[in-house]
Order: sequence, then C-alpha cells, then structure tokens
Amino acid sequence: MNLSAGFFYFLSFITAAVAFLFALYLYLWVKKQKMENRRIADVSELIREGAAAFMRREYRILAVFAGIAAVLIFLLLPTPVWEGGIADNISMTVAYIAGTVLSAIAGKIGIMVATLSNGRAAESAEGGLKKAFLIGFRGGAVMGLLVVGCSLAGVALVLMLFGDTSILLGFSFGASSLALFAKAGGGIFTKTADVAADLTGKVELGIAEDDPRNPAVIADNVGDNVGDVAGMGADLFDSNVAASASALVIAGSLSGSADAIKMVFCYLVLGLIASMIGIANARVGKDGSPTRALNSSTYTTTAVFLVLTAIATALTEGFSWRVWGASSVGLLVGVIIGITTDYFTDDTKPIVQRVAKASSTGPAFTILSGVSYGFISALPAMAGIAVSALAAYKLCAPMGEGYAIFGISMAAVGMLSIVGMIISNDAYGPIVDNARGLAEMGGLGEETIRVADELDSAGNTVKAVTKGFSIGAAGLTVISLLGAFMSEANVVLMEKGMELITGFDIMEPTVFFGILVGASLPALFSAMLILGVDRNAERMVKEIHRQFDTIPGLKEGNAVPDYSLCIDIATTGALKELIPAGLAAIIMTCVVGFIGGPEAIGGFLLGNIVSGLLIALFMSNSGGLWDNSKKYVEAGNEGGKGSNAHKAAVIGDTVGDPFKDTAGPSINTQITVVSLVASLLVSFFVSFSIF
Amino acid sequence: MNLSAGFFYFLSFITAAVAFLFALYLYLWVKKQKMENRRIADVSELIREGAAAFMRREYRILAVFAGIAAVLIFLLLPTPVWEGGIADNISMTVAYIAGTVLSAIAGKIGIMVATLSNGRAAESAEGGLKKAFLIGFRGGAVMGLLVVGCSLAGVALVLMLFGDTSILLGFSFGASSLALFAKAGGGIFTKTADVAADLTGKVELGIAEDDPRNPAVIADNVGDNVGDVAGMGADLFDSNVAASASALVIAGSLSGSADAIKMVFCYLVLGLIASMIGIANARVGKDGSPTRALNSSTYTTTAVFLVLTAIATALTEGFSWRVWGASSVGLLVGVIIGITTDYFTDDTKPIVQRVAKASSTGPAFTILSGVSYGFISALPAMAGIAVSALAAYKLCAPMGEGYAIFGISMAAVGMLSIVGMIISNDAYGPIVDNARGLAEMGGLGEETIRVADELDSAGNTVKAVTKGFSIGAAGLTVISLLGAFMSEANVVLMEKGMELITGFDIMEPTVFFGILVGASLPALFSAMLILGVDRNAERMVKEIHRQFDTIPGLKEGNAVPDYSLCIDIATTGALKELIPAGLAAIIMTCVVGFIGGPEAIGGFLLGNIVSGLLIALFMSNSGGLWDNSKKYVEAGNEGGKGSNAHKAAVIGDTVGDPFKDTAGPSINTQITVVSLVASLLVSFFVSFSIF
Repeated sequence: MNLSAGFFYFLSFITAAVAFLFALYLYLWVKKQKMENRRIADVSELIREGAAAFMRREYRILAVFAGIAAVLIFLLLPTPVWEGGIADNISMTVAYIAGTVLSAIAGKIGIMVATLSNGRAAESAEGGLKKAFLIGFRGGAVMGLLVVGCSLAGVALVLMLFGDTSILLGFSFGASSLALFAKAGGGIFTKTADVAADLTGKVELGIAEDDPRNPAVIADNVGDNVGDVAGMGADLFDSNVAASASALVIAGSLSGSADAIKMVFCYLVLGLIASMIGIANARVGKDGSPTRALNSSTYTTTAVFLVLTAIATALTEGFSWRVWGASSVGLLVGVIIGITTDYFTDDTKPIVQRVAKASSTGPAFTILSGVSYGFISALPAMAGIAVSALAAYKLCAPMGEGYAIFGISMAAVGMLSIVGMIISNDAYGPIVDNARGLAEMGGLGEETIRVADELDSAGNTVKAVTKGFSIGAAGLTVISLLGAFMSEANVVLMEKGMELITGFDIMEPTVFFGILVGASLPALFSAMLILGVDRNAERMVKEIHRQFDTIPGLKEGNAVPDYSLCIDIATTGALKELIPAGLAAIIMTCVVGFIGGPEAIGGFLLGNIVSGLLIALFMSNSGGLWDNSKKYVEAGNEGGKGSNAHKAAVIGDTVGDPFKDTAGPSINTQITVVSLVASLLVSFFVSFSIF
Repeated sequence: MNLSAGFFYFLSFITAAVAFLFALYLYLWVKKQKMENRRIADVSELIREGAAAFMRREYRILAVFAGIAAVLIFLLLPTPVWEGGIADNISMTVAYIAGTVLSAIAGKIGIMVATLSNGRAAESAEGGLKKAFLIGFRGGAVMGLLVVGCSLAGVALVLMLFGDTSILLGFSFGASSLALFAKAGGGIFTKTADVAADLTGKVELGIAEDDPRNPAVIADNVGDNVGDVAGMGADLFDSNVAASASALVIAGSLSGSADAIKMVFCYLVLGLIASMIGIANARVGKDGSPTRALNSSTYTTTAVFLVLTAIATALTEGFSWRVWGASSVGLLVGVIIGITTDYFTDDTKPIVQRVAKASSTGPAFTILSGVSYGFISALPAMAGIAVSALAAYKLCAPMGEGYAIFGISMAAVGMLSIVGMIISNDAYGPIVDNARGLAEMGGLGEETIRVADELDSAGNTVKAVTKGFSIGAAGLTVISLLGAFMSEANVVLMEKGMELITGFDIMEPTVFFGILVGASLPALFSAMLILGVDRNAERMVKEIHRQFDTIPGLKEGNAVPDYSLCIDIATTGALKELIPAGLAAIIMTCVVGFIGGPEAIGGFLLGNIVSGLLIALFMSNSGGLWDNSKKYVEAGNEGGKGSNAHKAAVIGDTVGDPFKDTAGPSINTQITVVSLVASLLVSFFVSFSIF
C-alpha cells in the first residue's frame, strides 16, 4: 500500500478517539459497581477531596509557572520576537500550553477515576479476587488510555496545525513542566505522609498501617493517588511525548522524511491499539494470581505490537524492516530490564531474602546490603540500554545519513509502545493499596483484607518492573533528545554562518566540563527532593504529636483526628520543597550553556543522562527491595513481625520510600526538562557563551 | 639557565636520596623515643605482628598475581613477543615488576614505622600534646617521604634506562596492581575488624571501643595500619606514578618534548622539596591545636611549591608560564576541594550537626540526610575538577598541538605535588588512633587519653580533607590517562595503516555503549567490596561470639581472648573478597574492548571516571560526615551518649565505615587499573573487536 501522510494523521485521531471511548466505557463500568458501606464511602470521599485539594493547589502554582514560561517562550523562542517571525513564536507558545493542559487533563481525570475505584475495589474484595482485581485494573486503565490517547492526538494535532517538527519541542516542554510538578511534587507529598504516618503510627504507637486514629492516614492514601497515579501518569505522558517528539524531529530532518514521519505515527497508533487489546484481555480467575494476570497482559501487548508492526512493515510502501528491528530491539530490551528489575526486587528471589537475612544482624546491614544490590542492579539495565542503542544505530545506519539516530529514537518509541499497558498496571497499584486501607478502615473482616493484601502485593511487584521499564525508556529517549539537540544547534549555527557541530568529543575540554557538571546534577536534584521529604515529614510528625497530645480520646479511638491539617502540610510542603530543586536544574543548564556553549551542553546532557540513569536505577531498585524485604520478614521469615530483623527492615523501608517514590522516578523528569530547556535555549548559548 | 635532561635526572635521584635520608633520620628519631610501659609494648607488638602477618599473606598472593601478569606482559606487550621486538617486552616486564616492588617496599617500611610510633606516641601523650603529636606526625612522614621518593626515583630510573616514555605505563601498572590489593584488600580488612568489634563490643556488650576483652580489638588496630597506612600509601603511590607517567607519556609525544619532560621532572622534584620543608616545619605548641598544625603545614607546602616553581619557570630556558599556570590551577583546585570536603564533614560546621539532629528522629533519617548531603557534596569537587581541566587546557592550548592535554596532566601533577605532605597527614591518623587505643589498654589515665583523643580527632578531620584531595587528583590524572590511551591507540592504528582516532564522539554508538557500561562499573565494584566487608564481618562476629561463649572468664576480664584468630579471619576474607571485584573490573574492560574496539574503550574510561568520581566522593564524604556526626553526638549534643540520637548515629557510622574506608577510596585504584589495562591491551582491541 502507498498511504498518504494525511491517512496517518486521520488514523491517529481515530485511534485516540477510540481510546477515549474505551476509557469512558471503563469509567462507567467502574462507576456502576456497588458502593454501599457508609464508612468506606466516607473515607473514600475524604481521599478524593484531599487529592482534589492537592491537585487544585498544584495546578494553581503550575499555572503561574507555566504562564511565566509561556510569556518567555513567546518572547524568545524559537527566535526572539523582536527579530521577526512572530508566527513561530505564537505556535511554540500554543504548543507549550497545549502540552501542559493535555497532561493536566489526563492527570485530573485519571485521579478522579482512581479515587472512585478504590472504595469499590475494597467492597467487591468481599466476593473474592476476580471482580476486585478488575475494578482496580480498569480504574487504572482509564488513566493509561487517556495518557496515550492525549499524547498521540496532541502530537498529531501540533504537527498537522503547524507543519514544523521543531514546534513539537514546545509541546514536549509543556508536558515536562507539568511532569516536574506532578512527579516530584506528588513524590514529596506521598512520602511525607507515608513516612510521617509510619513513624508515628507503626513505630511510636504500634498501631496498624491504616488505623483511622492516625491523623496522617488519609494524607497517606491521598499520597498514593497524587504520587503514584497522577505523578506517574504525568511522568509517562512526558516520556511518551518526548519519545514521539524527538523521533519526529529527527524524522523531519531526514532525506526520506515523509516516510519516516509516517512510520513514527504508524508505530504510535499500533502501540495504542496493542495496549487496548492487552487491557481488554486482562482478567484473573477465581483462584488465579493477580501478578500473573498483570504480567501476562503486558506480554500479550508486547507480542501484539511486534506482530502488528511487522504486518504494517510488510504491507506499507516506504516502511523499512530495519526500523522495525530497531523498535523491536527497544521493546525487547525493555522487557529484559523489567525481568532483571524483578530479580532484584521480588521477594521469592534470592536478593530480597539476603537483605532480609542481613537485617537480622542490624539495620546497618540492611542499608549496606540494599545499597550494594541497588548499585549492582543498575548494571544489567545500563548494559541493556547501551546494547539496544548500539543495535538500533547499527541496524539503521545503512539507510542513510541521520537514520542511525532515527533508529535509536525508534527503539525508544518501541520501548514505550506498550506504555498504555504499563500505566494501567502502575495505576492499579495505588488503587488496590487504597482499597486495602479502606477494607481495614471499613471493618470488612480478615478474609477481605487478605484478598486486598494479595491484590496490593501484586501491585508492588509489578510496580518495580514498570519502573525499570520507564527508566529504560527515558534513557533511550534522552539519547534521541541529544540528537534532537544537535539538530537544533546546527540550525542555529547554520543561520549564523558558524561551523556546524558534528558530534561531541569527550577530549574537548568544554564537552568534558559539561559532562562532569551534568553528572553531578541528578545527585544534587535527588538529594534536594529527599531532604525536602525529610523536612516536610518532620513538620507532619510534629502536627500528629500535637493532635495526639491535644485531642482528648484520640489514642483510644473515641475521637476523630483532623485529617485535613496533615493533608495541608503535605501539600504546602511538597510544592515549597520542589521549586528549589527544579530551579537548580534549570539554572545549572543555563550556567553551563553560557560558559561553554552548545558543546558544553552536549556534554552536560550526556553526563546528566549517564549519572541520572545510574542513580535512578539504584534508588528505584534499592527502594523496591527494601520494601519487599520488609514484607518478606513480615510474612514470618527471619523472626517475623516484631523481631530485630523486622525493626531493621522497617528502617530500610523508610530509607527506601523517598528513594523509590520521590527521588528515583523524578530523575527521569529532571533529565527531560533539562534536555528540552537546552534545545529551546540553544540559540542563546550559541550567541552568548564565554568559551 | 639552559639545563640538560641529564641534569634533571641527576636532580631527581639526588632529591629522592635526600628524602630517603630525611626519612631515615625521622625513623631513628621516633625509634629513640622512650617505650617503657610493658603492657603497651606487648599490645603494640601484637599489632605489629598482626600487620606483618597480613602484609606477608597479601604480598604472597600478590606475588602470584604479579608473576602471572609479568609473564603475560612479557608475552604480549607492547607487541606480542612472537612478532619480534623482544627487548621492549623485557623492558616492559622489568618496569612492571619494579612498580610493584617499589610500592611494596614503601608500604612495608611505612607500616613498620607506623607500628613503632603508636606505642611511643601513647606514652609521650602523658607529657602533653607537643611530643606525642611530633611522634605521630614524624612516624607518618616516613611513609610520605618514601612514597614520593620511590615514585620519583622509579619514574626517572625507568625513563633513563629504557628511554621510552610508553614503558612507564608498565611501571605505573605495577604500582596499580599493588594498590588494588593494598587499598581494596586493606580496606576490607580494616572495616571487617572495625565493624565486627563495634557490633559485638559497643553494641552488644556495651564495653568501650578499645577494651582488651574484645577478641577483635587487635585486629581493629591492625586494620588501621594495613588499611589507612599501607593501603593509602599504595593508593597515593599509584596516583602519583600515574600522574607522572601520563604527563611524561604526553610530554614525549609533543614537538618540544625535551623541554616538556624537563618541566615534568622539575615540578616533581620541587613538589618533593616543598613537602620536605612542610614536614620539617610541622609542630604544635604546648596548648596548640593539632588540626591547625596539620593544616598549616599543608598550606606552607602549597605556598612553597608555588613559589619554587615560579622561580624555576623564571630562570630556566624553555619553561613556560602557561604550564606553571596549569599546575597552579590544579593545586589550588585541590585545596578548594579539600576545603569544601571539610565543610561537609567537619563537626563544627552545619552539615554534620544537621545530620546529628536528624538522628534524633531515628536511624532512617540519619541515613537519608547523610546520603543526601553526600550526593550534594560531590558537586563542588566535580565542578572544581571540571573547571581546572578546562582552565589548564585553555591555558596550554596556544602552545601547540597536544599541549592542551599536557596542560591537564600538569594540573594533575600540580595537585599531587604536595602528596608527600598529604600522606604524612594521612598516616598520622591511624598512628594516633592506635595510640589512643594503647593509652586505654595500657591504663595511662584519663588525662593522657584526653590528649590522645584530641590527637585522634585531628587525624579524623584531616583525613576527610586529604581524601577529597586524592580523589580530585585521581580525577585529573585519569583525564590525562585518557589522553595517554588515545596516543597509544593511535600508535597502533598508525602501524596498521588504519584511520587515527581524533577524539571520542558521544554520538557514536560504540562510544556511547562504552560510556554506559563504564559508568556502571564503579557501582558494581564498590558494591562487591561492601558486600565483601559484610560477609567477612559476619564471619568475625561469629568467631567473637564463640570466644565469649567458650573462654571462661573472658567477659569478666580474667582471661585473654585469642586475638590471632580474628586477625586471621580478616586477612583470609579480605583477600578472598577482593579478587572477584578486581577481576570483574579487568574482565569488563576486555569485554567492552573486544565488542566495541578503542572507541568503546574511550567511552568506557570516560563513563568510569565520571561515575567513579561521583560515587567515590559520595561515599567518602557521607562516610566522613556520619563518623563525625556520631562523634558530635558523643560529645554531648542531641542527648549525648546512650540517647536515641546516639543509637541512630552509630548505625550511620557503621554504614559509613565501609563507604569511606573500603569502597570510596578503592574506586580511585579501580579507575587507574582499568585505564592502564586499556592502554596496555589497546593493540588487541584494535585487531579483534566486533564493531
């Protein structure tokens, strides 16, 4: 077949529309499930309100930030408005705003459905796994479908309206701005509440995790939603848009750009279709394993995508098997990264058990062994990314100039093709985590809590896998963003009649300078977020102590705590602690750019990617393995609950919480933000750098 | 003046000889100090014997390793012996063996003097600070003078005998082989004993740190010597040789190579002279501060070096002010790195106090805040190295082709010029640490212990600073090793008539592949060492429990434990745990080289340097700040000894111990070993790589 570009735009919109309709169907299905327990309904309502309050405050601050950014973009990008070309500046600004708004809408709706699903999943857990699993999964799938649909429709719309791939960078930057707030802010919120609730509840008072006497318990549940649903969704929206945008920017600069752009859209469309098929097929039998159900639908999606893209390649004129190979390598490496992550974080595997065993010698050994295995776990993922980039490059290099980097960007697109499925799995986690808490607070009995526990534990296992996956995808994406940065820089250099950049040589001192500074940024950024969680949790602990000290009868369960004050502390603190970290990243990019120019920025991006991947993998995996080794001890191993090993494991888990849910996953976003800021400001770095 | 090359060789030998004589004088001075307390003499003898036993076993294993390596070098390097040119292979082998032997001799004598000084320092502490300080410092200075003297004489001898700078790589590789064993093996030994002694003594039994009832107490004191004296000495010998060798290799390839080589030797000679002047002037008044004394002699050395090199540059024909500038920038940045390290690890500064405060909330916060500040602390040092490399490059680039990289190597030489002083400061630490233990075991009374404590605390503070310094120097050195690698690769490529390498472009997928894999190596290597310490400490804890359970009257102090069994466990375990980590580093280098050829290795070295610096700085600094925040709490802050903050701070310190004394400082050596393996095997990578 010889298909026109218009056909692919049309296909993109149609597929996105189908995804939205499918999401609507799932939403209505979840909504019609029964919700009769008053207590659960009340608490669920509190969670929904808390989440909504956070989102409102977050979006309000974000609106100010995005407004300032939009004005700056209008004035300066792609070229200063006083130098003419105002139309492009308007396009860029509109694209930027569209990126933030679409991401915000997806997040808002996703969290609404998630907070609707949790209570319903809890109630239906009374009838066993089957239905409760479906509610949790479908609630999450709404978010998955929305994110991928918005991303596809947005990218297609921007490109169709403005006809210039570089405007996509503005759209992508909009998605990143939102992700920075949603992921890092939500991450600080959720861990503030989690840590404070654990410290005062579990450790000081010895009450259960979701005991309603604890003033932080609702904030903790809100946190699961704003961090793991909205934050994760915004993060993957960002990665997905960045991967699509950079593939399209590079495709646009190729000799056979029309075909390349068609291929990108075709792969994006087929990824969404594969995810829908996977989502539609996810279910668990009466005595089945929810973990297996989640994994098997991921594998289904993968297989469907590989087959569909192969068919498309065979049938469509101008499509290349080399590109199919690159995309497939990316996807398969993603799956391998997921599997190795699972090896390091699954409590049926030796690593988690070894850390649990080390815990019986004391908490220092929990930390030392967890840090060590976390560091080791980075190797397979880093090597996997390295190999897939190398393979994609070598596969596509023979197609002509620029195709090698296009191959890498298609590997990223391939790895992210099943992102709809990944988000559904990921959002399933916090929903059933909430459901477990609601089952306890609603007094649904031990058997129901056991069912909810099983659902929750599957969520934890799958979460580690999807996290590895999304870090890997971010790694590949940013390599192609590096390519996109170089093309942008060369456009500017050509206009100014300066020498073009053909690469970034590490023996050049400006490049090397950039690399070293770039490598220290993720360390600084993650440290600032962790310290933010620390400070914020301290504030909340004080408030909890105050409530226990001043509200009579609270400890005995005869009074109700003031949940909203804790939610308020988490909200205010999260947004306050986030801003310096975000600014540090942006300012460092500018400083390096104005010192060393585009070469230094090339190095800076590389250093940032390399150390960012390392630190993100280390933090996510060590956090996951501490969490699961605590669970493993709690299941009765190494002395079980209350033993010394358990105390040590709880300390490990507390350390791991901000590692895996705040700092680790926020690094992705930091990397994307920095890459985009660099691409957008490149003309200034060219004109005004010292060296 | 117009001086000949012969003059500088002569000057090098004379200066080294003076340094040896000075060391002999200090040794005799220390030896003639009184040593009358029987108990102290006995324990000191036990420590000496333990250290000697470890060194014997270590050198025996090392001899096997070095023997195999020597045979391989003879057969293969610089070109396979069957392809002719046997003379070069013999030279390379001799140089390699000389590198190991000289380092071993310096280590052996250094540790002998250190174990001679500890008891004498303890006894003279009865008379106050002044004399005890001098004994500790002069005992350490013997090691400092030997290391720098051997390095200078060795490099000059190798170059004079063989007349070919590339043979120096063999000498440097010899020094690295020994350093790998001495630093990483000694590091595992010392922390095994320290952690096991603390866990059983302080934590379980609540007895003092140096209580003679603890079977691990002698092993702990031995560890201070084998890890911090012999290991650190071998490490800095290695860095110093590597810096000199790479400066000379690069100098040899320049158009004005004769002058460049003269400059390198002149700077090395003047550095040693400056260190001797600094050492001769180190003393403390009756009520003076030992920390201030150590720091002020470091600054004296720095100033003397800057002035002497300026005079030499002004007077000598062919010397360049640009090179002087590069070397001075290196030295000044080294001092700045030292000062920032001090800011993060000194307990009179806010960071340590904040971590102590966080400890009162629980151990998870000790860890989280320590990890965060450790990550942040990497930024100034990384930026400092980046800026000094950039400045040195830009300063020397106008001198002609190749001079830019020569400038960077001279910045490393400048930073390491005061290494004699640095080692003296560093070796002072374990001597007075031992002296404190001996004062306690010898029952010298509270006032003496207080004096010994003051000496010890100065050692700790200075140690953090010198560690930052040596990591910085290693960073710069390895950049110049990267340059040396490129020249070696080009020699081979030219012989084979292949295209020369002009740089390593990060957009090349083989380079990028190397970078990602290289970046994960330091994480893997340090994790393997930490896990080695864990396993080994577990074995020792078992043995200590066995002794307490089976030796009647031990707990009450009526029986003597079997110290030697603990020393034995530490020795065997250290060497056993070290080998897989060392092999992993070498094998990974080979795998990357055979997959991606010299381009991939260039990327691999870069990734390795960047993540190695980051992890080494993170581990050294967070370890140092946990150590000092424990000391700060013990001094009566945040509730003092026995409080919850103290318990948490002790956990932090236990985590930090293998960070700062095993893994962190061993990364330097790992980086150097990998760089040299790469340079030595480059012709194989060129001939047999897949891509």
